[in-house]
Amino acid sequence: MTPFRGAVVLGLGLIGGSVARGLAARGVRVAGWDADARTLAAAVGTGVVEALPPGLEGVERAEVVVLAVPVLAAGPLLRRLAPLVASARLVTDAGSTKRSVVRAAEEAGLGARFVGSHPLAGDHRSGWEASREGLFEGARVYLAPCASSSAEAMGLAGALWEMLGARPETVDAAGHDRLLAWSSHAPQALASALARALAGAGVGRAELGPGGRDMTRLAGSSPELWAEVALDNRDELLPALAAVRAELRGLGEALERGDAGALRRFFAEGRAWWGEG
Amino acid sequence: MTPFRGAVVLGLGLIGGSVARGLAARGVRVAGWDADARTLAAAVGTGVVEALPPGLEGVERAEVVVLAVPVLAAGPLLRRLAPLVASARLVTDAGSTKRSVVRAAEEAGLGARFVGSHPLAGDHRSGWEASREGLFEGARVYLAPCASSSAEAMGLAGALWEMLGARPETVDAAGHDRLLAWSSHAPQALASALARALAGAGVGRAELGPGGRDMTRLAGSSPELWAEVALDNRDELLPALAAVRAELRGLGEALERGDAGALRRFFAEGRAWWGEG
Repeated sequence: MTPFRGAVVLGLGLIGGSVARGLAARGVRVAGWDADARTLAAAVGTGVVEALPPGLEGVERAEVVVLAVPVLAAGPLLRRLAPLVASARLVTDAGSTKRSVVRAAEEAGLGARFVGSHPLAGDHRSGWEASREGLFEGARVYLAPCASSSAEAMGLAGALWEMLGARPETVDAAGHDRLLAWSSHAPQALASALARALAGAGVGRAELGPGGRDMTRLAGSSPELWAEVALDNRDELLPALAAVRAELRGLGEALERGDAGALRRFFAEGRAWWGEG
Repeated sequence: MTPFRGAVVLGLGLIGGSVARGLAARGVRVAGWDADARTLAAAVGTGVVEALPPGLEGVERAEVVVLAVPVLAAGPLLRRLAPLVASARLVTDAGSTKRSVVRAAEEAGLGARFVGSHPLAGDHRSGWEASREGLFEGARVYLAPCASSSAEAMGLAGALWEMLGARPETVDAAGHDRLLAWSSHAPQALASALARALAGAGVGRAELGPGGRDMTRLAGSSPELWAEVALDNRDELLPALAAVRAELRGLGEALERGDAGALRRFFAEGRAWWGEG
């Protein structure tokens, strides 16, 4: 017995598509919608989802609603959904930032039934084609409740992600956004910055060794998605980027001085952090 | 039939240890030496190498000599070897920079028999314990000749790495160091800078998702080794680091302005480079 029988997934990219595939594989009836009609047609074509019409007719019968749209699209979509989702016991999302979506849910009057979700299970590939049933297997999922989230909504959010093989962990939205600025958004920005610098120097990806490849893999991520994440979390991302720039400046100064001791410390202190696991 | 019967490997860390294992597995008799007596004992204990005494007695009979020591140790070692390696048809190294070692070989009078090597097959782990027979399988190896390198030495260097499963590619030392500053040394520096910034923010490695892990894996590399590489190649590394810092500054400015278009371009241009492969 699944904890709910039907779910609606709005947005069928990598994350939404993988949620839909995972739920369908576990016997949940999934209705899907995507802003791109071709994506929706592809998802319906595989038999994973039934199509929700463009006007979202039918969403009022959904027990669980999952938003998997770009972070800046989530607020407007929540406002549109608020008067429609009469039967919903849980409305959740899957975005990389949590403060703005939690605030939007509260403001739309959905706070009691909304719990923000953020699965740490991206991929540099994106879109329905990249989605797969096991994407969340073993992945951490941050759950960020609203101030007014009900115990039932929290329980369902946990059950949803556990069904998909993930490990839910409750956080507050502000702490989430601060942590992720450092642990995820700054690394993404660095990968893209390195890619741009290599482009400027005329060094192609084929010229990289295994280390350089790891350091630029994230540059293949969706630009639209990441522009929105960076913008939505800019107050937390800016200090993280400034800290990395300060480290690079310090390294440059040690190189200018030819300071072997400072260079060893630079790399050794980075490794000490790494070694702490 | 191997192209040579005996080789000496000086330095039995990750790279030298893997060379020794690979050659031994293909029937080459390998004599080994390491500045650390415990490392040498461990290598001898596995039966991979015979021990070369601390005074390097016996090196005069070696056909092939491979230096796998930190880049700043290679010059002094070449000067020490020069009067000893009477029988050597090839002396090569495995360091991450090539200008300084090629210059040292020329100055030591070994130019005709020296070819610099740089296998792109590192690992964030280091030491004999991390070495393995197949490390170079499929890896690119840059060969940087001296101005006076003989055709025989070039042929043997190619044969050596091909025996180990690698793909040799000839480059000039200056071009090598410029390319590697961008493709390898700057990525290493960025990984360490990010690790240090995360340490400063109190964010542990366990809190990272798959992307953040990729972006910090290199921070586990040997500090001693990388301090020397960075110092030896600092004239080329400094502009590469400056370019990355300029990219991060541009991103920061776009974030300060809340410029969604500039943010999309930042990530999109990084992805365009990535997509070119």
